[in-house]
Amino acid sequence: MYLVLVYDIKLDVQGAKVLRNVFKICKKYLTHIQNSVFEGELSDGQLLKLKIEIQKYLRQDIDSCIIFKGRNNIWMQKEFITDEDDKTSQFL
Amino acid sequence: MYLVLVYDIKLDVQGAKVLRNVFKICKKYLTHIQNSVFEGELSDGQLLKLKIEIQKYLRQDIDSCIIFKGRNNIWMQKEFITDEDDKTSQFL
Repeated sequence: MYLVLVYDIKLDVQGAKVLRNVFKICKKYLTHIQNSVFEGELSDGQLLKLKIEIQKYLRQDIDSCIIFKGRNNIWMQKEFITDEDDKTSQFL
Repeated sequence: MYLVLVYDIKLDVQGAKVLRNVFKICKKYLTHIQNSVFEGELSDGQLLKLKIEIQKYLRQDIDSCIIFKGRNNIWMQKEFITDEDDKTSQFL
């Protein structure tokens, strides 16, 4: 299955650590395409593992994370409205 | 057509103004579902107008904006990994 994951982490005292960990986990499973946006093809099992791992860090009441899932990416066209050069270098 | 729009605005000196304007324009055309994420059904004409309007404010080299488009949202399941209560109240 193809999916797009978008998160918004509240950058309070704990936020930087949450962001670092969530980013690292997402990069393990998906392709980072924009600051808080990842995409990729995952099996059900991989998606379940990803969710379990990130939920250890995400704070349910103040952080946001949404996954858009589809059978495959044929349905979906991706259009960059701004330059596409790598703005994903926020983290090494 | 159904679409998901995600933006990342660099919050430098100009950034707050850019964010306010881009947010206002996106809200005119789409539903705000998470801090920097909007979704909705638009015609080709509406999408063109939205793009023209936001591109007046987006800085090509430092801001990011991606639109994921599909014929309709049947393909697509949306899953909130965190609480779904309204974290969209960032702006009045």
